[in-house]
Amino acid sequence: MLSGEFAFLERLRRALPEPPAGQVGVGDDTAVLDGGLLFATDVLTEGTHFDLRWSTPADVGWKALAVNLSDIAAMGGAPRAAVCGVVLGAGRKGEADDVAAGLVAAAAELGCALVGGDTVVGAALTVTVAVVGDSPDSGAVLRSGARPGDSVFVTGPLGGSKAALAVLRRGGEPDPVALARLRRPVPRLLEGRTAAAAGASAMIDLSDGLSSDLGHLCRASGVGARLEAAAIPAGPGATVDDALSGGDDYELCFTAPDPVRVAEAFAVAGLHLPAPIGTVTAGADVLLSTPSGGSWPLAPSGWEHPVE
Amino acid sequence: MLSGEFAFLERLRRALPEPPAGQVGVGDDTAVLDGGLLFATDVLTEGTHFDLRWSTPADVGWKALAVNLSDIAAMGGAPRAAVCGVVLGAGRKGEADDVAAGLVAAAAELGCALVGGDTVVGAALTVTVAVVGDSPDSGAVLRSGARPGDSVFVTGPLGGSKAALAVLRRGGEPDPVALARLRRPVPRLLEGRTAAAAGASAMIDLSDGLSSDLGHLCRASGVGARLEAAAIPAGPGATVDDALSGGDDYELCFTAPDPVRVAEAFAVAGLHLPAPIGTVTAGADVLLSTPSGGSWPLAPSGWEHPVE
Repeated sequence: MLSGEFAFLERLRRALPEPPAGQVGVGDDTAVLDGGLLFATDVLTEGTHFDLRWSTPADVGWKALAVNLSDIAAMGGAPRAAVCGVVLGAGRKGEADDVAAGLVAAAAELGCALVGGDTVVGAALTVTVAVVGDSPDSGAVLRSGARPGDSVFVTGPLGGSKAALAVLRRGGEPDPVALARLRRPVPRLLEGRTAAAAGASAMIDLSDGLSSDLGHLCRASGVGARLEAAAIPAGPGATVDDALSGGDDYELCFTAPDPVRVAEAFAVAGLHLPAPIGTVTAGADVLLSTPSGGSWPLAPSGWEHPVE
Repeated sequence: MLSGEFAFLERLRRALPEPPAGQVGVGDDTAVLDGGLLFATDVLTEGTHFDLRWSTPADVGWKALAVNLSDIAAMGGAPRAAVCGVVLGAGRKGEADDVAAGLVAAAAELGCALVGGDTVVGAALTVTVAVVGDSPDSGAVLRSGARPGDSVFVTGPLGGSKAALAVLRRGGEPDPVALARLRRPVPRLLEGRTAAAAGASAMIDLSDGLSSDLGHLCRASGVGARLEAAAIPAGPGATVDDALSGGDDYELCFTAPDPVRVAEAFAVAGLHLPAPIGTVTAGADVLLSTPSGGSWPLAPSGWEHPVE
């Protein structure tokens, strides 16, 4: 599925003309238009992105807006407005109220006006949100600006959503904080803006998982990275594996040349300090160093366990 | 289905705060944000909006962008950029190439940059496009500005798409121009801009059909209208009924106080003259006058035939 997704977007990117200088088209967390206007879309569809046994239609409405705002956060931007396209499952029109309530709640609590929509009855519940926002004064933080020597940060613990989902699938009771995060993620908008103001050189939101998403950032920047396994914060119930491969936490990963400036900026903003988890390197490899002194390449799906 | 659609949007509208003065939220062809930025979304889903027996996935990609641009046209605006969210039917990944090709072709030929996307495999082919654009200098033309005495215009023949679809369903060969229009509609962007420049007081795109869409415009404006049946242009193979009730032609309907100014502006722009089909009236009724001298209320689904 992911390979299909990347293939489709890569196909689009190749077929489209280059965007004008200073603008960004397909391939970053959002597009950047004239005047620094940010523009992005994300689709959530039943069976792939959510399971109605564990999330209500209202949770789905919330999440559809939240994951789009996470893309704005990853540019260091501020959201301005969103529109939603909703396919309601046939025979389940009652879900419409619930989806609308979740969208409206997210719009109010996350601070983004909901200004339009289209809806239809179809095969499966699908909520597609598109969002516009404004770049920070210093300019949108792209994926492509990381330089060797920069520090790599994540804004919070990772893998909790993956761990919670695994517990649900086994019929167990997941950690309530992790479960709330899985159902109603909170985009790291203030963290993204603070990172931008602190000189972040590149940023991405962790929707697919640290291994995969940091790989995108490194490829876009033409760099590698070395991560310290012991420094990667794991969410409730999560292993280091979960933290590396679990998406759906919607924390941000960013690089910055000056860790002290980052720490100061987050402290002044009253935010939890982001965790420094490694260093940007020359070359193309993303390596994970373990406390025992070993070092292995990180695969998109997470840590490839060495055969011992 | 339509009642469900309107109910969902009405629910959203009621639950959302009022937009700031000068801005427009849910309920017009597009939202109007700060600075006159236009923002809209439309969903096309298999089984409801298209049938893959008669349209290719490339046609669907084209149409998904075109119908969004039609919303921009209905504000008198100019499109700036679009993003797409695509659900590919499971087991039919081969359609991805074709959908992408249709989107890219529409972006190039209709003059709107395609700047981002998200894609996933799911239950049925669904393409959701969102578009941003800019208002004309005179301000976006809303649905709510029609005044008694204004003339009512449509930008071209109506009902051809509905007639073509009916022929396809009977196994026949539809008119090729109407079929091309059904598969790959062309949004009336220049016509919309010209109408705005000629003083249009209200405008809407005819996606659901003249009866239904003019009803929306009249309710938003707090007015009625009287149409002359003989003046309504019917597309190839279409009856007056088709012209009243058939959506999917993506012509525009607008009102304007000065028909001479409209005619001049369209002539100067090198466009076909829009057809004057009636007059805005005080009150709330939308009436259809027939050549025999009768006059009947127009229902959303088209002309309600009088029982004789």
